[in-house]
Amino acid sequence: MGERPTVDLNSDLGESFGRWTLGDDAAMLDHITSANVACGFHAGDPSTIRRCCEDAAARGVTIGAQVGYPDLVGFGRRFLDMASGELGDAMTYQLGALEALARVSGSRVAYVKPHGALYNATVHHSAQAAAVVAAVLAYDPTLPIVGLPGSQLLERAAEAGLRCVPEAFADRAYTPEATLVPRDQAGAVLHDPDEVAVRAVRMVTEGRVTAIDGSTVEVAAETICLHGDTPGAAAMAVATRRALEAADVQVRSFVG
Amino acid sequence: MGERPTVDLNSDLGESFGRWTLGDDAAMLDHITSANVACGFHAGDPSTIRRCCEDAAARGVTIGAQVGYPDLVGFGRRFLDMASGELGDAMTYQLGALEALARVSGSRVAYVKPHGALYNATVHHSAQAAAVVAAVLAYDPTLPIVGLPGSQLLERAAEAGLRCVPEAFADRAYTPEATLVPRDQAGAVLHDPDEVAVRAVRMVTEGRVTAIDGSTVEVAAETICLHGDTPGAAAMAVATRRALEAADVQVRSFVG
Amino acid sequence: MGERPTVDLNSDLGESFGRWTLGDDAAMLDHITSANVACGFHAGDPSTIRRCCEDAAARGVTIGAQVGYPDLVGFGRRFLDMASGELGDAMTYQLGALEALARVSGSRVAYVKPHGALYNATVHHSAQAAAVVAAVLAYDPTLPIVGLPGSQLLERAAEAGLRCVPEAFADRAYTPEATLVPRDQAGAVLHDPDEVAVRAVRMVTEGRVTAIDGSTVEVAAETICLHGDTPGAAAMAVATRRALEAADVQVRSFVG
Amino acid sequence: MGERPTVDLNSDLGESFGRWTLGDDAAMLDHITSANVACGFHAGDPSTIRRCCEDAAARGVTIGAQVGYPDLVGFGRRFLDMASGELGDAMTYQLGALEALARVSGSRVAYVKPHGALYNATVHHSAQAAAVVAAVLAYDPTLPIVGLPGSQLLERAAEAGLRCVPEAFADRAYTPEATLVPRDQAGAVLHDPDEVAVRAVRMVTEGRVTAIDGSTVEVAAETICLHGDTPGAAAMAVATRRALEAADVQVRSFVG
Repeated sequence: MGERPTVDLNSDLGESFGRWTLGDDAAMLDHITSANVACGFHAGDPSTIRRCCEDAAARGVTIGAQVGYPDLVGFGRRFLDMASGELGDAMTYQLGALEALARVSGSRVAYVKPHGALYNATVHHSAQAAAVVAAVLAYDPTLPIVGLPGSQLLERAAEAGLRCVPEAFADRAYTPEATLVPRDQAGAVLHDPDEVAVRAVRMVTEGRVTAIDGSTVEVAAETICLHGDTPGAAAMAVATRRALEAADVQVRSFVG
Repeated sequence: MGERPTVDLNSDLGESFGRWTLGDDAAMLDHITSANVACGFHAGDPSTIRRCCEDAAARGVTIGAQVGYPDLVGFGRRFLDMASGELGDAMTYQLGALEALARVSGSRVAYVKPHGALYNATVHHSAQAAAVVAAVLAYDPTLPIVGLPGSQLLERAAEAGLRCVPEAFADRAYTPEATLVPRDQAGAVLHDPDEVAVRAVRMVTEGRVTAIDGSTVEVAAETICLHGDTPGAAAMAVATRRALEAADVQVRSFVG
Repeated sequence: MGERPTVDLNSDLGESFGRWTLGDDAAMLDHITSANVACGFHAGDPSTIRRCCEDAAARGVTIGAQVGYPDLVGFGRRFLDMASGELGDAMTYQLGALEALARVSGSRVAYVKPHGALYNATVHHSAQAAAVVAAVLAYDPTLPIVGLPGSQLLERAAEAGLRCVPEAFADRAYTPEATLVPRDQAGAVLHDPDEVAVRAVRMVTEGRVTAIDGSTVEVAAETICLHGDTPGAAAMAVATRRALEAADVQVRSFVG
Repeated sequence: MGERPTVDLNSDLGESFGRWTLGDDAAMLDHITSANVACGFHAGDPSTIRRCCEDAAARGVTIGAQVGYPDLVGFGRRFLDMASGELGDAMTYQLGALEALARVSGSRVAYVKPHGALYNATVHHSAQAAAVVAAVLAYDPTLPIVGLPGSQLLERAAEAGLRCVPEAFADRAYTPEATLVPRDQAGAVLHDPDEVAVRAVRMVTEGRVTAIDGSTVEVAAETICLHGDTPGAAAMAVATRRALEAADVQVRSFVG
């Protein structure tokens, strides 16, 4: 008899800023197992971050560092051509800031996941990927890195001996090459909770997903990303989690 | 035979920001024993901070957190009416960010000293003083707090069981009540390195300083602040350190 | 036969920031006559501001400068102890930035209203009030200033020869002394659209409002402020405007 | 008899920020004819900008808008992948902010010159070049744009009917293709005031400069850029201006 399959569900949280609220952290935390908490450079002020860490800790949800470019007005969604040294130092700064707020909330930073344009850039930009990896390595070599399978980020992390956690996106369309269909193309983002849930189950139990052209592609997901900042986010998280559990998938953090 | 007197010399460092350089950190680090390193809210970018921590670590200089208001354009020198919770979270965030950069530099944060308007506010503003103390207590109750003798900050810190490190200013004039003469009054700041050095020695060996009216007042200094951002800063540090050593005062960090 | 009474309805708009949306500018613009548009220091990024100016211009709504402290994370709601010169320059900068975006939208800045903690500070803080007034006077002495009757801001503005536009708050409770009940007291903010509408009508037609203790106090309002960032904001604006028009009050901008 | 040759000398000024001073604006203003004043997004706070405008106005130096990316910590020297709309709005915002501070100083914004990475990006990046041009066109179509000959920026500006002012760099080495040798290559920046002065004279009187390989290339310069943020900046400006005047070149603003 085979081992019961497991997967982690992660979501970007702690992204409010001062007077501005984004997403419903408390609602998402009831359904996910890993919270990528913003660290203040592209989103998240100290009090927002602390509250998010407290809420995550109270529910036993693992906290990861959602590190990003220093670009509040752009929400970290615009490529910024940072040199390796300054990018690495910016990573370290964010890791430490979140660590302190997680610690006073009774938890700790347990993994790292780059956000937005930094996530996308480090798929191909080897210097920035290496800078992120070097910063994590120097800060705490036991921290896993979450990223896209095949990305420079995960390749560099593997070379450096960091644990790599490959990620899939249940609510995003895939190309026949198993990359994500860019957001500005029709059909790139899926909105039907049931469809998303079915895809998530298949990703975990079969390691496959139907691409946008109808072909089948392989995905290796230890964690599935659920978006937290859309109106139907919580409903999609509920549907996905229930479907996974109904399929006898164990939903739990990838951190021990 | 009496014990040999000791004192610490501290200075604000790591206050450059991006393209803008302030002070000569490397020069000051040769003469001081404690570096109050800016944490990015009123001064200091991640790379500036990391370099300052590396230089401090290389010279065995203790690193402290120079926490401040989130006010870059005002350099943290303007009172900001922050509520207790948000001030405390801002302290925790800064402590953690500096801790990470100190750690990858082979050192750690060993004490806390508020900067600028926050330093001045917490002399009298008990809510803000209490917020700073509460944040330090929650983050790491072994961290000493440097402040003005008699300040709300040190009173609250003492109540909370934190170690208090009273500070004196060798280059600032004192009132007959042992408070600092405000900067905008004539004679408030001393510029002659020899005069400053003599005052420093007397502060440590006698526990006294001559006030601006010629009277003698008592000061209890475990650490003496030397300003690092003025043209003659390094010369004043050299003169002060030499005079203290010539008077058989042991100059060393107040942290074990 | 008496002249038909008139009043202006103003609201804070353009307060979104990058990814973060606040309020529903388009909905409010259908019911108000003056838009206090944020200028980027406490809220509002350039694109948000431009869109708000375009939408205001399209509906013939007058644009005013919602100037504030440089404090994004605090939304300008925390007193900042700025010196007169730097506060005045910050005002000029914001006025010009908004003017440019209003101009390319086919409109212009037609008045000034300080926001948040700056609004509250300039009720009593004569130096900051004078700095705001001096900046407006130097930039464009034809710009009216909106403020609380009896405030230092309006007194200084009157002395300087600027047009003063006294403001009332239909959804805020008044003290028997005709000042606003602080927000942290019970009953300070009214939420029933019909009650707010009735108060607005009485403010305009009788120049009176019922204070929180039941007494009647006088208010002189050329403009009434409606809050735009709450869930029921548009409904309250609709109710207020309809009630005013039903009472034969002419609702129009105070700018010619 | 030929017409007396003329040229403008421009320099980046107003680049201090709060407590941080950069360059010596007053010294440079005695020797240049056009001041590219920072607008607050990559450098320059409101009070710095106002002082710079006042000093420029007092000396009859023309004021231009040194527009840049919103990246203080990177000093606008890192490419930021802004979409056309948000870049254009950021330009308009900066133009207006500077215009207001120039106006209260008795002057006005008379031209536009992008700064740092935006200057470099708009050499080739047609979308960002077009966005800058569109913003200037909408704000004030009489404003000339200063840029590199052959750049997308000047090509788009010419298409749009804006006046283009080609610029040369007397203290930068040129490639045989008449582009600038990148800063990170040996010999890219010249430091000898006399050599720079001789190159400036030849640029204006002959329209030629010796490239880094010894060949001669053509340059068409209506304005020559002098760097203002280096220790020898004022000395280089003095030497260049004197050499130009000794060669009977008229040094004056390119604006009427």
